[in-house]
Amino acid sequence: MAPIRRLVLDVLKPHAPSKVELAREVASVSGVSGANALLLETDRDVENVRLVVEGDDIDVEAVEHRIVDLSGTVHSIDEVVAGEQMVDSRDIPQDWLPP
Amino acid sequence: MAPIRRLVLDVLKPHAPSKVELAREVASVSGVSGANALLLETDRDVENVRLVVEGDDIDVEAVEHRIVDLSGTVHSIDEVVAGEQMVDSRDIPQDWLPP
Amino acid sequence: MAPIRRLVLDVLKPHAPSKVELAREVASVSGVSGANALLLETDRDVENVRLVVEGDDIDVEAVEHRIVDLSGTVHSIDEVVAGEQMVDSRDIPQDWLPP
Amino acid sequence: MAPIRRLVLDVLKPHAPSKVELAREVASVSGVSGANALLLETDRDVENVRLVVEGDDIDVEAVEHRIVDLSGTVHSIDEVVAGEQMVDSRDIPQDWLPP
Amino acid sequence: MAPIRRLVLDVLKPHAPSKVELAREVASVSGVSGANALLLETDRDVENVRLVVEGDDIDVEAVEHRIVDLSGTVHSIDEVVAGEQMVDSRDIPQDWLPP
Amino acid sequence: MAPIRRLVLDVLKPHAPSKVELAREVASVSGVSGANALLLETDRDVENVRLVVEGDDIDVEAVEHRIVDLSGTVHSIDEVVAGEQMVDSRDIPQDWLPP
Amino acid sequence: MAPIRRLVLDVLKPHAPSKVELAREVASVSGVSGANALLLETDRDVENVRLVVEGDDIDVEAVEHRIVDLSGTVHSIDEVVAGEQMVDSRDIPQDWLPP
Repeated sequence: MAPIRRLVLDVLKPHAPSKVELAREVASVSGVSGANALLLETDRDVENVRLVVEGDDIDVEAVEHRIVDLSGTVHSIDEVVAGEQMVDSRDIPQDWLPP
Repeated sequence: MAPIRRLVLDVLKPHAPSKVELAREVASVSGVSGANALLLETDRDVENVRLVVEGDDIDVEAVEHRIVDLSGTVHSIDEVVAGEQMVDSRDIPQDWLPP
Repeated sequence: MAPIRRLVLDVLKPHAPSKVELAREVASVSGVSGANALLLETDRDVENVRLVVEGDDIDVEAVEHRIVDLSGTVHSIDEVVAGEQMVDSRDIPQDWLPP
Repeated sequence: MAPIRRLVLDVLKPHAPSKVELAREVASVSGVSGANALLLETDRDVENVRLVVEGDDIDVEAVEHRIVDLSGTVHSIDEVVAGEQMVDSRDIPQDWLPP
Repeated sequence: MAPIRRLVLDVLKPHAPSKVELAREVASVSGVSGANALLLETDRDVENVRLVVEGDDIDVEAVEHRIVDLSGTVHSIDEVVAGEQMVDSRDIPQDWLPP
Repeated sequence: MAPIRRLVLDVLKPHAPSKVELAREVASVSGVSGANALLLETDRDVENVRLVVEGDDIDVEAVEHRIVDLSGTVHSIDEVVAGEQMVDSRDIPQDWLPP
Repeated sequence: MAPIRRLVLDVLKPHAPSKVELAREVASVSGVSGANALLLETDRDVENVRLVVEGDDIDVEAVEHRIVDLSGTVHSIDEVVAGEQMVDSRDIPQDWLPP
């Protein structure tokens, strides 16, 4: 089966453990070469984080377990790339036209 | 006949199987080197996904069958590239002028 | 005479034959190295496609015949590049100023 | 004297001869390595074309004569680059500020 | 554990010590190869600075202590990258759609 | 003293001599490797041109004299780069915020 | 201590000495490899200039003295980069969201 190369996750998490710990823990999962945690919105109790994970063969379940172990919830999977080669998404004309 | 190098598909699918499985399965089709599944919109029962498939000689029918096997429907084919060389689309002035 | 390197065509076509077949057929024309078919708008009976064709020495008449053979109509030629070297168009200040 | 490397011309022309012929003819002028003809606006009798010409030492008069021979008119010269080296124009803050 | 490669911090600080001293001091922390201090907003008594810190293995606690030693406060951690490889964040369609 | 590497000038000039002659003449000044003349606005008697001049060691006075010799006036100097190395300007947050 | 690699300064200065002299003088300061002076706004008596200074080890005090010697005033320091490596600032989602 083709390996997973990128995951973009919408994560909801309490303020502690920190985004530093989250990025560090996810970057240590098998098949992951790097993780980016970007703050989208912050609230009194929780914060909403976009987590981008890249690697040669990401263990998706292990990533999701690591997030849950750190008290986070995966709200949605926004982008997935699979295969021998990284493929980026494409804009199409419908994206820039008003509905 | 010239090989297909890129397909951009507008796919409607139930929440399960997941986009991870969809990208992985499509990236395993003959002639495909990578697949990107981007979430466009999500609903109670279905999700709308932009699927970008790239490769040296994509088996288009096999890609479409794999999507149907995973309970997805191809809503439209938004972009196709064929040939020895990848060619990107071009903006033209009519794109930035109001109608 | 200088060779044609790029053609951008505005094509109107019925839903069948598909854009996959259109791109594949045009990419197989003499002097063409690749073709990109982008869906601009879709209707009950027809679809409007931007077709970008690149190559070292495109046989323009053959491209147009191939489109007509597939039941398409060339609505307009939006961009043409000729010469030993590819040249892109340029923005000028009048483009960003309101009229 | 320094050679001309790029010309951007605003050209008005009848529908025939075509933009394909215009680009091909201009790309064949002495010192020209490529020509891009972009459709800006189309009317019943005429079309407005942005013509970008690049080369190591463009013969400007010959380019203008070739356009006139093909029944076109040079409305304005929008950009000129001269010298041993290609130089692009620059945005300045006044460009993005409202007047 | 995976090393930290980038930190983006929202810092509030008095006017003295200066941003020059802040950038210099943070760039001297263990594992840091460079620091960028960008002025976001300035007030009578304080200024709001975006601090981007990059390195092969940033000592996050030491960075935070250095900021506090210079009388600054870390308002929020806006982005964190961890792993063997730098990973940038990704735009997703929800970013360009109105809510 | 550090050499001048780029000049961006706002020039007002009559229609003749042409922008082709202006670019050619300025590109021939000592220390200049290329010149770009971009039409900003055109009037019955005069035209407003952005002139970008680049080189290893531009003779600024000679450039200004050449412009005056061609009946042009330097309205303002919009950008100057000096030094062994080309340095571009930077956007800062105040540029994208409304005042 | 880490060296300073880039300074972005908001400078107010009389019309004379010119921006050419300002850029040239600042580019000649110890540790500076290039300087860019961009006109932001012009008034009857003064002009507002964005000055970007880059180098391997900029002598910040000497830059500021040189500006003052030329009758300029440093209004604010908008960006500072320090370290062995150049680091650019980052956009974050809060930048593109309305407050």
